[in-house]
Amino acid sequence: MTSSFSDLSAFRALLADLPGQDKLASANAAARDGQLTKPPGSLGRLEELAIWYRGWRGGDRAEIVAPQIIVFAGNHGIAARGVSAFPVEVTAQMVMNFQLGGAAINQIARCMGATLDVVPLELDRPTRDFTTGPAMEEPDLVAALRAGWEAVSSESDLLVVGEMGIGNTTSAAALACALLGGAPSDWTGRGTGVDDAGLALKANVVEAGVARHGGAGDGLEMLRRLGGRELAGMAGAIARARSLRIPVILDGFICCAAALCLERTESGALDHAVAGHRSAENGHARLLQALGKTPLLALDLRLGEASGAAMAIALLQGALACHVGMATFAEAGVSDA
Amino acid sequence: MTSSFSDLSAFRALLADLPGQDKLASANAAARDGQLTKPPGSLGRLEELAIWYRGWRGGDRAEIVAPQIIVFAGNHGIAARGVSAFPVEVTAQMVMNFQLGGAAINQIARCMGATLDVVPLELDRPTRDFTTGPAMEEPDLVAALRAGWEAVSSESDLLVVGEMGIGNTTSAAALACALLGGAPSDWTGRGTGVDDAGLALKANVVEAGVARHGGAGDGLEMLRRLGGRELAGMAGAIARARSLRIPVILDGFICCAAALCLERTESGALDHAVAGHRSAENGHARLLQALGKTPLLALDLRLGEASGAAMAIALLQGALACHVGMATFAEAGVSDA
Repeated sequence: MTSSFSDLSAFRALLADLPGQDKLASANAAARDGQLTKPPGSLGRLEELAIWYRGWRGGDRAEIVAPQIIVFAGNHGIAARGVSAFPVEVTAQMVMNFQLGGAAINQIARCMGATLDVVPLELDRPTRDFTTGPAMEEPDLVAALRAGWEAVSSESDLLVVGEMGIGNTTSAAALACALLGGAPSDWTGRGTGVDDAGLALKANVVEAGVARHGGAGDGLEMLRRLGGRELAGMAGAIARARSLRIPVILDGFICCAAALCLERTESGALDHAVAGHRSAENGHARLLQALGKTPLLALDLRLGEASGAAMAIALLQGALACHVGMATFAEAGVSDA
Repeated sequence: MTSSFSDLSAFRALLADLPGQDKLASANAAARDGQLTKPPGSLGRLEELAIWYRGWRGGDRAEIVAPQIIVFAGNHGIAARGVSAFPVEVTAQMVMNFQLGGAAINQIARCMGATLDVVPLELDRPTRDFTTGPAMEEPDLVAALRAGWEAVSSESDLLVVGEMGIGNTTSAAALACALLGGAPSDWTGRGTGVDDAGLALKANVVEAGVARHGGAGDGLEMLRRLGGRELAGMAGAIARARSLRIPVILDGFICCAAALCLERTESGALDHAVAGHRSAENGHARLLQALGKTPLLALDLRLGEASGAAMAIALLQGALACHVGMATFAEAGVSDA
């Protein structure tokens, strides 16, 4: 298994050679599911999740005991344009809050029995304002992708990625608009809570970014031009999870925009990922639809920092616990239909 | 606090005197929520759930460490009419499966750190076929309500109720139709998986039951005439939880039909309850709408046995963990918007 990569072409080569499902494990899981003491299909998506999970893990691996959450943080030149309700220093302040255990994701991680890793990416070196040039040079993109790749533990059995970065809903909206089309306003939302004037300003910034960079390349090239370090970190981690056969739960709009960059570079690159939730951020429902993902939760969260996806860990754990622990009709002496 | 009741009028009197929310606890919770290190409202329904929970628990009680799941089981005379895909002996077989730990709810309860109590209610004495007379005489109804009332532990801090009973989606459909109106087919679904002929038969049985008993009394009277022991058990437990200030998560169609009987007897009797999920059973979405409850999950479950509501325990635990554990802006030194 390749441990890392040193340039973008090597990362592209890895993306082109990602492993597929273990079809035997998947078939075995489906066969077991049909024998469990419940009417066929009555556990709904939990059945589908268990079969999907086992297919990706491969072999007999059917337990979730070591979920890993990684929150990447980055700063954005675009924040200086006034696209956020919060000042840019909040990124670093929130990283400190994560490290001291005071953020929402710390509490949720503990609830779910998940490890939480926080990966700040050169917070004192924001990306360039993408309306004036590419957000990152190629070495910066590669470094952030690598940071993501290397943050995934090979011992994890489920990965959740999320982010913190003042200004990054603007970056995500620009990526979605550049890669999927539509009007800038379709993808632009209130983020942490801008007012109507702020929303209009954001849409203008997105429009300018897309006008400058749209069509200039594939998903990874758009990630370099319109993305940010924390988005690249998530993309690198999602790809690494695939190479390790670790299923992934995607978080909200920004996470899905980062994931979209992988999918638009290599179709099928997100087959090992489910959507944890549909956030309240404008554009997320549309983005999920473009990715072909049905969210597990829809609780109107719009916090980022992996919070929605981390809440969904319990659903996957429950699905696998039923799959592994339930008796079959024969074992329990229950009459089948 | 009244420990129990000996007849239906005493139960009615208890229902008429249920406690309301602790408004101070609720206000304190809302005030704390506004200071936590997140953009206002960005935890969506998790914020609302935490404030709601604290209002019902009262005082400073804001932890979920002792959730209790109770599964009531009963048999239905109506099952002899062929309304289920499974034979009636499956009720007792599944009770045994619960007791031996082999059912879905056993696995989910363990995942959520919840205790699981199984309460079989005179399985060898099915209710009467409601097309030929009332399902229960008053002493049977009172005994089942009491069994529910007494099954709730005063040490619990969250209650989930569910059921097992071959034929009980037919009973629930008849209750919903009698209490809410509409066509029998609006409320009749496939339950454990009847075919088209079985579905038409069920709708006819529901129609006959509603024709015989509809309009003959309030929610409790309908529960006696069209319900079943496990439905009455759930109703008794939900009422008891309210008297103990224990918030409740409602499960699927049958649980909600039992809850509806309380609500139609005493408006507001379900204010301490949230809907855990929207099941795939026809009529559940409509029933939730009639109850004014927005489900937390929608995973196409249709198993009963409290499974969907039990999955939602994690969401409430996550909501409270964030509410209690997060730092405030002042504590964390994070700049507010």
